[in-house]
Amino acid sequence: MEENQTLLEAAQEMGVDLESPCGGEGICGKCRLKILEGYFSKYGINSGPDSLSPITDEEKTHLSEAEIEEGFRLACRSRAVGDLLVFVPPEGERGRQVILETGIQRDFQLNPAVENVSVNLPPPGLGDKQGDAERLKISLQERLTRDHIAIDYEVLRDLPHILRDSDWEVSVTLWQEAEAIRASGSAHPARFGMAVDIGTTTVAAYLCDLEHGAIKATASNVNPQVAYGEDIISRISYCQRQPGGRDLLQQQIVKSVNELVEQLAAEARIAPEDIVDAVVVCNTVMHHLFLGIDPRFLGGSPFIPGSKAPLDIKARDLGLQINSSAYVHVLPVIAGYVGADNVAFLVAEEPYLQDELGMYIDIGTNGEIDLGNKMELSCTSCATGPALEGAQIAFGMRAAPGAIEKVRISPKTLEPSFQVIGQEEWYPELSRSNIRGICGSGIIDVVAQLYRSGIIDPSGRFNKGLDSTRVRTSQAGGVEYVLAWKEESGHGRDVVITQMDIRSVQLAKAALYVGAEVLMEKRGVRTPDKIVLAGAFGNYIDKESALAIGMFPPCPVEKIVSVGNAAGDGACLALFDRHKREEARRVALDVKFVETALDETFQDRFIKALAFPK
Amino acid sequence: MEENQTLLEAAQEMGVDLESPCGGEGICGKCRLKILEGYFSKYGINSGPDSLSPITDEEKTHLSEAEIEEGFRLACRSRAVGDLLVFVPPEGERGRQVILETGIQRDFQLNPAVENVSVNLPPPGLGDKQGDAERLKISLQERLTRDHIAIDYEVLRDLPHILRDSDWEVSVTLWQEAEAIRASGSAHPARFGMAVDIGTTTVAAYLCDLEHGAIKATASNVNPQVAYGEDIISRISYCQRQPGGRDLLQQQIVKSVNELVEQLAAEARIAPEDIVDAVVVCNTVMHHLFLGIDPRFLGGSPFIPGSKAPLDIKARDLGLQINSSAYVHVLPVIAGYVGADNVAFLVAEEPYLQDELGMYIDIGTNGEIDLGNKMELSCTSCATGPALEGAQIAFGMRAAPGAIEKVRISPKTLEPSFQVIGQEEWYPELSRSNIRGICGSGIIDVVAQLYRSGIIDPSGRFNKGLDSTRVRTSQAGGVEYVLAWKEESGHGRDVVITQMDIRSVQLAKAALYVGAEVLMEKRGVRTPDKIVLAGAFGNYIDKESALAIGMFPPCPVEKIVSVGNAAGDGACLALFDRHKREEARRVALDVKFVETALDETFQDRFIKALAFPK
Repeated sequence: MEENQTLLEAAQEMGVDLESPCGGEGICGKCRLKILEGYFSKYGINSGPDSLSPITDEEKTHLSEAEIEEGFRLACRSRAVGDLLVFVPPEGERGRQVILETGIQRDFQLNPAVENVSVNLPPPGLGDKQGDAERLKISLQERLTRDHIAIDYEVLRDLPHILRDSDWEVSVTLWQEAEAIRASGSAHPARFGMAVDIGTTTVAAYLCDLEHGAIKATASNVNPQVAYGEDIISRISYCQRQPGGRDLLQQQIVKSVNELVEQLAAEARIAPEDIVDAVVVCNTVMHHLFLGIDPRFLGGSPFIPGSKAPLDIKARDLGLQINSSAYVHVLPVIAGYVGADNVAFLVAEEPYLQDELGMYIDIGTNGEIDLGNKMELSCTSCATGPALEGAQIAFGMRAAPGAIEKVRISPKTLEPSFQVIGQEEWYPELSRSNIRGICGSGIIDVVAQLYRSGIIDPSGRFNKGLDSTRVRTSQAGGVEYVLAWKEESGHGRDVVITQMDIRSVQLAKAALYVGAEVLMEKRGVRTPDKIVLAGAFGNYIDKESALAIGMFPPCPVEKIVSVGNAAGDGACLALFDRHKREEARRVALDVKFVETALDETFQDRFIKALAFPK
Repeated sequence: MEENQTLLEAAQEMGVDLESPCGGEGICGKCRLKILEGYFSKYGINSGPDSLSPITDEEKTHLSEAEIEEGFRLACRSRAVGDLLVFVPPEGERGRQVILETGIQRDFQLNPAVENVSVNLPPPGLGDKQGDAERLKISLQERLTRDHIAIDYEVLRDLPHILRDSDWEVSVTLWQEAEAIRASGSAHPARFGMAVDIGTTTVAAYLCDLEHGAIKATASNVNPQVAYGEDIISRISYCQRQPGGRDLLQQQIVKSVNELVEQLAAEARIAPEDIVDAVVVCNTVMHHLFLGIDPRFLGGSPFIPGSKAPLDIKARDLGLQINSSAYVHVLPVIAGYVGADNVAFLVAEEPYLQDELGMYIDIGTNGEIDLGNKMELSCTSCATGPALEGAQIAFGMRAAPGAIEKVRISPKTLEPSFQVIGQEEWYPELSRSNIRGICGSGIIDVVAQLYRSGIIDPSGRFNKGLDSTRVRTSQAGGVEYVLAWKEESGHGRDVVITQMDIRSVQLAKAALYVGAEVLMEKRGVRTPDKIVLAGAFGNYIDKESALAIGMFPPCPVEKIVSVGNAAGDGACLALFDRHKREEARRVALDVKFVETALDETFQDRFIKALAFPK
């Protein structure tokens, strides 16, 4: 451990997975760990608070006096000045996330951007001394009646023996009928593509068999950039303050995608070189961080992306360990906060082909809403904040084992009943005491239930004078509702939902609601024909609860559909059918981006939308 | 040192520069070294012949009994079985070569493939949310009235801050008016190109200022592939027998070119990234080995190159450490043994623009001859062998200090008089006894002088019964002429020219002569209007001597001109004037390649040409 390094930095270097949603700014209070005191002969360490920098004011706002007494510190605010033994408590560790890896059934045309073409070349002789590459090129051009077909440099290298070993009969893998990216002596060389959906938190990859139009394997992992900032703003700020930070974040995500390449290839028993095409979708910041494009100016108005158009980049230029001659197609982005993932969502759902007026919502740290049909499409982004994903919520966490995901509260007893990820039973009949926190869908549920049971009023405030031990005043003086007692939890602390948490949910749902409202008004409608929810969140959310708290505009609950990871589906479709790429390019140009926050009525609307519907 | 490794392999691994022109095949006998016997306490080594594999028959043909007695061995045939201390005698070490690095004055149009274009972009705002790359692209397209200008991926990465730091006024470096390969906030970013002539033995590089059309620096080094085989055939065979050999040879040459990049940049005080263009010329085998293209099929009939057309390859794909977005333009090759260096020679000399019928000769291990004018051009290659470069000659060596380069023999006394590289005086008045061998120009001189003084007859045989101690019968039984006595040499052995050496020169000059003759006959002429000699060899050769032994067709000596490193000049011209690349492409397609050796009269002509002109 280097001097003057924070414990968080040291942990990151050692590969210890500590939560740091705020990117080590001392704001979120999630990177808590416990300093163990005493002499630990096994490690030859004489540990204790003296080996650490003194406690900061920031830490005091996040840690109770009792916790400080016990040796708790924030890793991002503590610097070691001697040897230390620390304990990372369970709620600070990451579990394996529950993520949606396959979408719904969608029809598509199988027409990939890469195809195999067999050519039979006339062998050279003393009267025909054409070079190998020129011989292949001319045959391809004649075969496809094209004026020019390029051969990738990497293909040239082995061409001489491939042509001769195969007796001048080769299969050439062509990209966009324009460039030979592989030459093979095999009659039917394997032809796979990889779709990658790089989320701020999760990276999901799909191995697509381009010959048969089937998904052969899926895999996902946590975006390793999480260790450098949980949300995109912290990552932009990391790039800003850390020299070399941008390169580092790019290397991290590329490494992570390469791990998925290996997993997918192993699962499908193919060679990574058999992956001859790739499509990548992601939000605009992840787009920049994956491509190594300076993201700093996405962090401030007017939020201009470094590049918006679709890109085709050689896999080797990105360090992606698929076939090095393959192109990685990156779908276009629409705006600083409406990314290629939203484009992929549209390409999967095809609102531009439909009469029905749909509202397409993807909720993450940032919410994206599209509204439209074949006449017109508009979109906006809403700063929902991370509350709906469980961050900046006292006991918020990602959808991992131990997370409360479904909640009911009895209006009579005010007692809760809930389900925890990893267990079948409902609380209080849980077989194990592993409750650690509340994930996004649980938070919406609990707020809706608190409201329905009268524990909070339409303004979101706790009602006073309720006869329940569950509603109490906290040490800090605020009112909170206790979902689980410390003896029932996995970390020995009461799991509560605070007044502040309810405020965070209100801010998030109001932002989303106003975005939807502005789009509807501009379109001149009062309600959409249907609401389409993308992402894992859309899948797990209780639609009734969401309507109850006013997240969405009024809409019959049966017209609210969840379509799973539509962005991933869109990426797969762009692999299977090259025309989808052209569709994506067009829709990204055609969709009208509305800056909701610039609407002069925004502030009024927003304040109005904070309340719960009566 | 690994078990079963030859001393040559071990020496190569340790970076010891041992000559091995035959590539370690036990044929050339150049890799001799001396095993030191006894206990060497400093090294803790108990050395001696017992620590080595037994002497082979091949070694016995190259080493005299006395030498074997002294402990000499061939490194390529000896395998260590214990610790060893060896001594590499001086004639086995390499000196710094004397090489021609600048050519003659040539006129050219300054019209490089890369240019700097300044653009002033409208800054973005809330009403103009174009992405940075798209904003730049549109401005460039408008400015140059082009439909499409690409932006290299690497340029995207820093574009956001470059645009803003420069207040939206940037200089863009454009390649072929088609692709932006650099964006810079500086008003006049430095614009350099690098021309590289990769010879089998020597790599020469020229740093060209593309703004002013001047060569700013030159540098050269020895092609490190020499350690894996002195001639191209040994290198092809190295690739054939050594797994990974092709990649290794490519890495070696790229590393070597990168060293030249560093030298040139340091000398001109520029950054390597300021080099935004490159042109590479080389013979066809070096072309393949530099690009990593499988060269094996260049080694046998019909000698088909893997790629003949000109290539533009990203510097980063080759690992060339100039600007990573730059393209490396590789001139086209004509045939398996007529390479891009010959194309560059033609582009420099422009026979296709002239009335005069010129014969263009580049002599290396392989001779290339072009004959023609603006009506027609034809070319051939001749297997001259390495004799004219000093290889496969008993005391042959490259043009390095200690090499005899000019020779006169008195017809009366039969005593020689010669000049040695590194000394002003003529033998026998030399101030230092550093004579080590004979380089190419010296060999032609000595053969011509032996013939003129009557020591050898027109058939090349030594005349018998001459009254001179210089002409003697060797230990092996052949006749030889002593140029320098052992006490005058730098290695303590007599420097001689043997009957075998004379035969080698005859084979070489006959091959060259027949090539010229066949081209002339096909063209219907008996003599060219001029003979143009390229390369260091052409510069140093004594033209009278060359005519005397019948190397060239009869031609007035004043019509024989040396033009220095014309291939390097051609490469520089292709940097300064992009039209030269199109000229090169066309001439490579237009020049008629004649396979001299396939001519049915070849054998008769060749035998006739072995004799010296009467």
